[in-house]
Formats: sequence, C-alpha cells, structure tokens
Amino acid sequence: MANLLVAVIVGSFRHASFNRQLAHAVVKLAPADFTFKHLQINDLPLYNQDDDAAQTEPVKRFKADIVSAQGLLFVTPEYNRSIPGVLKNAIDLASRPYGQSVWSGKPAGIFGVSVGPLGTAMAQQHLRNILASLDVPTLGQPEAFIQAKEGLVDAAGNIGAESLAFFQNWMDHYVAWVKKHAHTQVE
Amino acid sequence: MANLLVAVIVGSFRHASFNRQLAHAVVKLAPADFTFKHLQINDLPLYNQDDDAAQTEPVKRFKADIVSAQGLLFVTPEYNRSIPGVLKNAIDLASRPYGQSVWSGKPAGIFGVSVGPLGTAMAQQHLRNILASLDVPTLGQPEAFIQAKEGLVDAAGNIGAESLAFFQNWMDHYVAWVKKHAHTQVE
Amino acid sequence: MANLLVAVIVGSFRHASFNRQLAHAVVKLAPADFTFKHLQINDLPLYNQDDDAAQTEPVKRFKADIVSAQGLLFVTPEYNRSIPGVLKNAIDLASRPYGQSVWSGKPAGIFGVSVGPLGTAMAQQHLRNILASLDVPTLGQPEAFIQAKEGLVDAAGNIGAESLAFFQNWMDHYVAWVKKHAHTQVE
Amino acid sequence: MANLLVAVIVGSFRHASFNRQLAHAVVKLAPADFTFKHLQINDLPLYNQDDDAAQTEPVKRFKADIVSAQGLLFVTPEYNRSIPGVLKNAIDLASRPYGQSVWSGKPAGIFGVSVGPLGTAMAQQHLRNILASLDVPTLGQPEAFIQAKEGLVDAAGNIGAESLAFFQNWMDHYVAWVKKHAHTQVE
Repeated sequence: MANLLVAVIVGSFRHASFNRQLAHAVVKLAPADFTFKHLQINDLPLYNQDDDAAQTEPVKRFKADIVSAQGLLFVTPEYNRSIPGVLKNAIDLASRPYGQSVWSGKPAGIFGVSVGPLGTAMAQQHLRNILASLDVPTLGQPEAFIQAKEGLVDAAGNIGAESLAFFQNWMDHYVAWVKKHAHTQVE
Repeated sequence: MANLLVAVIVGSFRHASFNRQLAHAVVKLAPADFTFKHLQINDLPLYNQDDDAAQTEPVKRFKADIVSAQGLLFVTPEYNRSIPGVLKNAIDLASRPYGQSVWSGKPAGIFGVSVGPLGTAMAQQHLRNILASLDVPTLGQPEAFIQAKEGLVDAAGNIGAESLAFFQNWMDHYVAWVKKHAHTQVE
Repeated sequence: MANLLVAVIVGSFRHASFNRQLAHAVVKLAPADFTFKHLQINDLPLYNQDDDAAQTEPVKRFKADIVSAQGLLFVTPEYNRSIPGVLKNAIDLASRPYGQSVWSGKPAGIFGVSVGPLGTAMAQQHLRNILASLDVPTLGQPEAFIQAKEGLVDAAGNIGAESLAFFQNWMDHYVAWVKKHAHTQVE
Repeated sequence: MANLLVAVIVGSFRHASFNRQLAHAVVKLAPADFTFKHLQINDLPLYNQDDDAAQTEPVKRFKADIVSAQGLLFVTPEYNRSIPGVLKNAIDLASRPYGQSVWSGKPAGIFGVSVGPLGTAMAQQHLRNILASLDVPTLGQPEAFIQAKEGLVDAAGNIGAESLAFFQNWMDHYVAWVKKHAHTQVE
C-alpha cells in the first residue's frame, strides 16, 4: 500500500494549546508510511447556508485537504461539555453543500486533553455522533481521555516516558484502523 | 412582577431561515409582559482562548444582551446530528473567560424546525447537555421537534392554524418556566 | 412548607456498591425538613409493553413511592458509557403505561462515583436526556462526577473531611432546586 | 469467505413488536452467505455485579451466541429518548465480568421503528456511544430512522414495495461493513 496521508484537525486556536502540542507529539509515533498534515481552521468563515454556492478560498482549501487525505485525526478540547463551536463549524463547512460532503468514508481517530480529570470525554461522545452521521468510521478502543500533567509532552515535543506505552498502543490501533478502511477505498 | 425580557438566539444565518421565521412567529404567542430581543451572532469571531482577556465589541454586546435578559430562547437547525458550529461558537464565547459566563441561571426553551421529519431532535439533545453544564434550567416538555410544512408560518408571519394549538401550549409552558426561575432570581 | 420527601434511586445492585454508600452518606447533609426513602429496583421485572395493563406489585409499589415523593435523587454507576440497564429499566417501568408516567415535574439531582477518573460523566449525560424527556427538571450545577478514593465515605458512613465542602455545597443547591419546584407543585 | 452468522438483538419484548417484525423482514434481504440468529433477551436476569463470577445459564447462552457470531444487528424501539433498559441490560451482561466482554470487534448495524416520525433517532445516538466504548464498529450511513406505516411489512412478512429500495440499500451497506470487519478478524 502506498503512503497514507492523515489530516489532523485541532479544536483549539490557543497558541500554547495542550491539544495541539499533544497532536504533534502523538503523530511522531506513527510508522514511516504515514504522513500527517496539520490543517488550519482559524481562517474559516462562520458557516452560512446562503454561501453554499460560493464557498470561499479557505473553505475550498480545507475541503481539498480532506479530500487528499486517507485518514482523519481529531484532537480537541471540551468546551461546555461538547466540542468547540469552531471545530463543529469546520466540520459543518466541509459537509456542505448538500451532497458534496468530503468526510464520507474517511477513517478517523479522536483524542483530547483537559486540565481536569474528565479528559474531554463528553466532547468526544458528541463528536462520535456527528462523525457517524457523516459516515466517518471512527476508532472505538482504546479511548483516549487525557488529563494534562507535567511531562505529558516533554521539552523536545515528544510524548513523555510515563504516557508512551499508552499512546503507542493507541497509535497502533489507529494505524490498523486507517489501513483497513483506506485499503477498501482504493480497491 | 415586572416585564420579562427574553434573548432569542437562532442557529442559522440563512436569510430565509425557517428557524428564524418560526422564532418570530412563535414569540407573538407570548403574553404582553414578555418582550423578545433577537440577538445577532453572525458578527461574532471564532472563539480563541487567547482573546479571553480582550473580548471584542460584538462579543461584549452579545454578552451584555444575555445579562440583560431574564430568559433564553434557542431556535436551531440541526447540522450533522448536532447544533450548528456557529451556535456553539456563540455559546462558547458568552461562557468565557472562566468564571465570567453570562449563562448561569437563565431559564431557557428550545425548539427547531427541519425539512425532514426528525425536527432537529438530535441537535436538541446535545444542546440540552451543553445548557445543563452552563447551569441553564431548560424546559423539558413539551418537546418541539418541528417538520417544515406548507403553512407552518403564514404569509403574515403568524403560526398557521394547524400548528397554533401546539405552539400556544408550548409557549404557555415556556412562560411559566421563565417566570418560575426569573422570580427566584430577583427575590 | 411541609417536610419534603425525596425518592433515592441507585443504579447498582452490588452489595458493597460505592454509589449506594455515597448516597446514604450524602443525604445526611440535607436539612431537617428533608426525608429520603431509598427505593428498591432489583425486584422489578424486565419491562414488557404487553404487561402495561397489568403491572405487577413491585412495579406498583415503585410507582407509588415516586408519586409520594416531592423530589428525586439518582445515584448511579456508569456501565459502557451510559446508565446501567437496570436503572433505565426502572425508569421505563415507571413511565408507563402511556399517559401514566409518574416522573413528570418531580425535581431531580444526579451524582455518581466510579473507580476511574471519569466519575460517571457520560452516564449522567444520557440520564439528563432521558429525564428531560420525562419532564423532570434536573439540577445543572454543581455537576458531581466523583472518583472513588480512600476516605470518600468514612467508617461511620459519613462523607469524609476532604469531600465535605463539595457535597455540602451540592446538597445546598439540590435542596434549593427541590424547594423551588416542589413549592410550585403545591400552589 | 465462509458463511457469516449475524446475531440479531431486538429491544422490545412485545409480542407484536414492530421492531421484531421489521427485523425478520429486513434480514430476508441479505445474500445467501449470511445467516441470522434471533437472540432472546427476555430471560436474562437484571445485571448485578456480585453475580459476575457465577453468570447464570441464560447469560452464558446469550454470550456464547455473541461469540459465535461474526456480526451484530440491533433493532430497537426508543423508550424515553434512549434505548430500552432491557436492551441495555443485555448489553451490560455480555460485557462482563471485566475483561470478558464478548462484544469487542464485532461489526454492527442499527435500525429502529417507531409510531411517531422520530424513528428511534435519539435511542440510536445513545446506542452508538455505548457500542463505540465496547469497540463495536458500527455502520454509519445509511441511517435508518423508520416510522411505522401501513405496508412497511406486508402480510407475508416481507418489506413492503415502498420501502424495499431503502432497506435493500441499507442491507447492501451492512453486508459490506460486516464483511470488511469479519474478514480482518480471521486473517
């Protein structure tokens, strides 16, 4: 199988976002035939159905990046017990116009980190509902509800020693999941 | 009790939005001591935690409108089996910075209309989770999962004859709910 | 206002259930005008709509206990990211036959304890959806996602010193919530 | 590939259950290499963790049937905006004791029928959350939120002409989903 490209979408815009740091660290655990592209969603407009016929450049670019990818990786904080509005907005934009969603069939993984112990669990439950309706097959286990702690990501941007086994196992399952679904797509 | 002001928030920006039309029609069924202010959320920025310390004018105005209100009315389409990102974004903005949410304790009602028969049911379930975490007491029954149909709102912008009893009953329950919670707030 | 009776429903049947222990400890923090009755749900049958017309004695007794109560307290573990089937079964039974639900309008509180850090958060989200549809006004904040730890409940069955402030605050909000809704019921 | 066995689990015990009738009709649309076994869940006990070490015969039989199957089919009514307690109870039983869940990795499909237009949509959302945590890969699209209507299932127990194209398309997607995941299991 050829190299596989994964689109990484982070739900936080904060400069020092734990979720973005974690996303960059976790993708280093993937095998050599996986490439990750970190997509920008902070330049997207607020979704308005009246604009469906004339999506702007940032929307077109975002959608093209999804189309090019064989897999999806969502890394997201939890705001008010759901996913951030800005992440949902990006998902909405790329699902439109009707019949032109770019999400369908792309295998996905989800994780998220929070300061508190809940680790974005409730945001992930909503995201799973959303992705199911978009026909995005989403990795079930291992779940990854991460609490931020000293050393989760080290100074060099790598997963810390204490969390390495957990995330390597997560990545191994994710890689198998993407390969299974990506393989089918190119048959 | 003095007059009660309700902030109306519609989850669609579409010019001819069924949800906005329905919102305007339904609020006409309220008693004379209720006033409704339709808030704008399409000029709000995408939420970025780094901006918490310097919220922009549209955010301040939106938050001030919530603060002034004794009740909330959410009228929303369903996008991808959840609420629109643009509605969640507005909710996120007004919940921040940490400790300065303006939502807490404001009684709310929810309804939504869709072209299909599901009537935004799944969006409303997610919205209920979100509002509970924001300490917004939300009317339970009657649920209002509305399918768009000819005559739902007539040419004069009023609820059509077939739906009038349903929405008048909904409004009566909503009014009682707002009064119960607003009353307590001013004690 | 007269004394208020609260029906306590625990989602676990385990003899040494942390949730039951916690339920018994937390209710001691209520004021003197509150009484708590711990309901049994392990003698209820599996719900079958064909039996609606002839509910058995345990079902009738359970429903009568709900009818007598002015408030509800759900204390539940999380099984497979939702509430236990046995708790949902009890809720289903008391919501039937159609038009004879005993839940409507009873104010409720929710908490739960788990061995892991998630503290039954995802179960509680589902329970909130269920209770909203039953027209049960449910306390929003403070949320109570509790992780079991040494000393949570002491040997005498009281809330431990470390958790006392949290649960007293929870109870104060719960008591105010029940009083607000119970008051309205008897007007 | 050898024949594939699917375990069918219906969330209603009602003798004339629409969901059971629909389940029997839909499985006739599968190809010849698919066999369906309709499991009984109305003889299962209420789950009690204290019984984990000594599961009774009905539980063992139910779990063995899941183990033997290469796929799962859940057909369920919606009770109080979630899945029936009796269905959740069956799921809980077969997920226990800890580490001995029989669900993991079995590909699943979901549909449900209701008298009203919502077609069990909200029950299915909760079920998706539950199945994801059990590592059950669940078919996303096509969603199947079915409203009961005259002729949905005809007198001979077949899908009626009006609904045939919809359900044949659903079955084709389901079959492909099961084959993809079952194939991987035996590699």
